[in-house]
Amino acid sequence: VQVLGYARRPETVEQALEMGAIDRGSTDPADVLPHADLTVVCIPVAATIEFGVRHADMFMPGSIVTDVGSIKGRIVEEIGPALARRGVRFIGSHPMAGSERAGLAHADPRLFEEAVVFVSPGEQPETHALDCVRGLWRSVGATCHVMDAADHDALVARTSHVLHLLAAAAVPVGLRREAAVQATAGGFRDFTRIASGSPAMWRQIFELNQKEVLAALDEFECELGALRQCLAEGAWQAVEDRLEAARSARERWLRDWRGHASVPP
Amino acid sequence: VQVLGYARRPETVEQALEMGAIDRGSTDPADVLPHADLTVVCIPVAATIEFGVRHADMFMPGSIVTDVGSIKGRIVEEIGPALARRGVRFIGSHPMAGSERAGLAHADPRLFEEAVVFVSPGEQPETHALDCVRGLWRSVGATCHVMDAADHDALVARTSHVLHLLAAAAVPVGLRREAAVQATAGGFRDFTRIASGSPAMWRQIFELNQKEVLAALDEFECELGALRQCLAEGAWQAVEDRLEAARSARERWLRDWRGHASVPP
Repeated sequence: VQVLGYARRPETVEQALEMGAIDRGSTDPADVLPHADLTVVCIPVAATIEFGVRHADMFMPGSIVTDVGSIKGRIVEEIGPALARRGVRFIGSHPMAGSERAGLAHADPRLFEEAVVFVSPGEQPETHALDCVRGLWRSVGATCHVMDAADHDALVARTSHVLHLLAAAAVPVGLRREAAVQATAGGFRDFTRIASGSPAMWRQIFELNQKEVLAALDEFECELGALRQCLAEGAWQAVEDRLEAARSARERWLRDWRGHASVPP
Repeated sequence: VQVLGYARRPETVEQALEMGAIDRGSTDPADVLPHADLTVVCIPVAATIEFGVRHADMFMPGSIVTDVGSIKGRIVEEIGPALARRGVRFIGSHPMAGSERAGLAHADPRLFEEAVVFVSPGEQPETHALDCVRGLWRSVGATCHVMDAADHDALVARTSHVLHLLAAAAVPVGLRREAAVQATAGGFRDFTRIASGSPAMWRQIFELNQKEVLAALDEFECELGALRQCLAEGAWQAVEDRLEAARSARERWLRDWRGHASVPP
């Protein structure tokens, strides 16, 4: 297997070659896309759509394309038909792994070990293409879950996207006052970690998953409103009951999640 | 120096003796409090007040008492005068360290290394008592910041207490749907970590810091409302600008916080 790399900046291509992440690289997609049996597009979600549609005629007929974006509906809907006309199959991927850090300097060869990857085929069942993409993720240690793109987007709006808004709103509240740096510790660091993610990347996620993120925000505000009312009324037992429900749900999740992650891929 | 330990449950006293955490221990405060030059009360905040006031006559005259609670105003106001009548000095402490895990099984001898401890004397300047309490924290590697109790409570409501409500509200939103366990990763784990803290302990913190927590919640809802409006209107550049403001504020904080923590105590 030969790994080809495309990036906009020549420094990135050189760095990837030096790291041994790619065998050959170019800043011109025409040097790379026509030669690839399997292409993984790793750029922000709106850029993924734009790139896929613009270069549709450049991919090798019969080849397979996937991505790593945090939303799947709009990507599968818009790239799928554009590539299908060329005889190229698109299968969407969303690996549940990564961090708030971007760029090759934060590359980690073990990033996908024991991770889950959501895989969303388009409307046509594409068994061979799906198997290839699953094989790719299995080869780096991940487990695949096939899920309808719209269901995926509704789910991750609630488990991930909405948290980013909450962390971004909590940062100015926490840091506005003098001496905040002394009054923050591991709790603040972990709660706000995701707020260090790329604003350009997250803006595109919110743009392409607007409806579900707003629905997730409604659900969150409903939960927070109930907690707030107990607090305002001094209903302390009700406050404790709600905290206990959240604690036990999280502890149960932590056990399931760890058990799940330790299942061999 | 001899370390005496009091706990309600005999198993806890035995475990502390076995671990070498204490030299002598008892489940009866009368065996311990009259013999201590410096007492550290480590129980939830409302229980701290109740314990301090109830046992006021048991402490050694001339001795010093401190605590580790996350609120300082009500503790200093209520214990201070009760102990002063006995000639005992109370200085409030709040170490910015710890985790969501409770009990001796999670004890860590390095917990306070490079941590900040907020120290709140009462209304009387108590130079000797303050020096003793600062010496205690310095001896385990922490740095002390003296702060007025009311200022402290307003500050930590925003850097810490309000985050606990947000995490508790985010847990049911994230976990309600099927397949949530597959759709959660390090982001969800870190964002909700504090929601695994003791509900009984947090209930008391909210009870004793109700006003400031509600004010912090107002500030949070104002920030979240602004983000939500941009999202609902499709004002994507404004969304990105707000995310960028949060990201750069957090990155600045992270540098200051790490720089701060590495200052020798």
